[in-house]
Amino acid sequence: MEEILRKRMEGNEYVRHLGVELLELREGYAYGRMPYKKELANPYGFLHGGSLYSLADIVAGNGACMDGRYVTTVSGTMNYLEPAVNTEYVYCEARKLRSGRNLAVFEVRLRDDAGTLLDSGEFTFFLTEHRVE
Amino acid sequence: MEEILRKRMEGNEYVRHLGVELLELREGYAYGRMPYKKELANPYGFLHGGSLYSLADIVAGNGACMDGRYVTTVSGTMNYLEPAVNTEYVYCEARKLRSGRNLAVFEVRLRDDAGTLLDSGEFTFFLTEHRVE
Amino acid sequence: MEEILRKRMEGNEYVRHLGVELLELREGYAYGRMPYKKELANPYGFLHGGSLYSLADIVAGNGACMDGRYVTTVSGTMNYLEPAVNTEYVYCEARKLRSGRNLAVFEVRLRDDAGTLLDSGEFTFFLTEHRVE
Amino acid sequence: MEEILRKRMEGNEYVRHLGVELLELREGYAYGRMPYKKELANPYGFLHGGSLYSLADIVAGNGACMDGRYVTTVSGTMNYLEPAVNTEYVYCEARKLRSGRNLAVFEVRLRDDAGTLLDSGEFTFFLTEHRVE
Repeated sequence: MEEILRKRMEGNEYVRHLGVELLELREGYAYGRMPYKKELANPYGFLHGGSLYSLADIVAGNGACMDGRYVTTVSGTMNYLEPAVNTEYVYCEARKLRSGRNLAVFEVRLRDDAGTLLDSGEFTFFLTEHRVE
Repeated sequence: MEEILRKRMEGNEYVRHLGVELLELREGYAYGRMPYKKELANPYGFLHGGSLYSLADIVAGNGACMDGRYVTTVSGTMNYLEPAVNTEYVYCEARKLRSGRNLAVFEVRLRDDAGTLLDSGEFTFFLTEHRVE
Repeated sequence: MEEILRKRMEGNEYVRHLGVELLELREGYAYGRMPYKKELANPYGFLHGGSLYSLADIVAGNGACMDGRYVTTVSGTMNYLEPAVNTEYVYCEARKLRSGRNLAVFEVRLRDDAGTLLDSGEFTFFLTEHRVE
Repeated sequence: MEEILRKRMEGNEYVRHLGVELLELREGYAYGRMPYKKELANPYGFLHGGSLYSLADIVAGNGACMDGRYVTTVSGTMNYLEPAVNTEYVYCEARKLRSGRNLAVFEVRLRDDAGTLLDSGEFTFFLTEHRVE
């Protein structure tokens, strides 16, 4: 499963443009990172809130996919705690809070190189029996 | 103010990569769009949740900037209602629900070419007296 | 359906303690109100955020129930825009943004007697075929 | 500070009706509980989503108050993971994710007697220099 997901990510242009990499992936847990790049920053030089949200959605979504079902994002919430700047990477840890017959909920925590918490949020995914081929 | 914001957007690589354009901008209201592009899609061919969220954040953020203060996103929530596919553009309407001394809250509604509601959400911005130069 | 829901509400102690009444109820739309009462206020004399959220959940939930299925709240988000005080009632309007095979999403808007917008949010409900008897 | 907050809570009718108690309270952390009571349940016999949200808001809000400033809830999000039923109490742990000059963000996790995670969410509070007398 992990290999399928990694290949799918590498083949996806949106993920590649962001530069998101998965560092760890197991049932109920995913860990990844995105580099600080000027082309992902807002006019103030901080990583754009949309790029940070995308990192979180991608990492948590891959965690949800580990259960083998077809996954779509139902909702996401993000709290921006500190600006993402002066860091080589932003790291995202996604942990499953619950998964049931239809829905999985993950918490996400984003940190900089120094381990400072930058952003927090929760994502909900819909899981259907239609399997990833 | 509108001209400053438009120039700043055009100069921002993250906005340019997404292809977000502002169509209307006035105090408390912003309207923009993002084209459907393969490089913004997820592996299922739908626009990635992160790109849709970015569209919403950019459009609402510009609406918040119309008040002349320095704006940072405090939080965002998104509900994904229908997949964004088979449309030339996704349109985003952002309406101010409230703005006070420190915080502004906007609702966002994303629609496809046919006017179908695709996504909804709310964004909160922090406003500081530090002016946009 | 409307009668079943009204009776169920009147029989529910939590709803009765809050004093929530439904004023209008139809497919995809619900409108209700809750009186300002000292026993629902926080130490500052404003209606407690939890009581306002409860009003929203109850009104939107009844809107979701109008489709005849068994309804449970999956998630809720609330933005508190203005303090709820100096008003006889708080009015809540809940409008369906989408409903599908499994999930329904409603926006909620709370206003005071003068029509000032106090709070906004979105609620997601899970719908199952198990019918309300 | 802790004593002031406890007294204020005991004097508040909304808190008393819910039966919320604080079990632990220190800078950046609060832990409390609410009993399962029929008058807080929905028509299915589960604790009402609004009562659970209220518990979370009260516990996290007291955690935010520990910094000595005047606290108001800006926003709250809740994900309902499991029904709250067959438990004597629901326990709520609130942990500060960040606090700055104006805003504090807390995560909340609600559990039943057996330690099962029932609900998760995040609350944002506005802090002003107006001190609690």
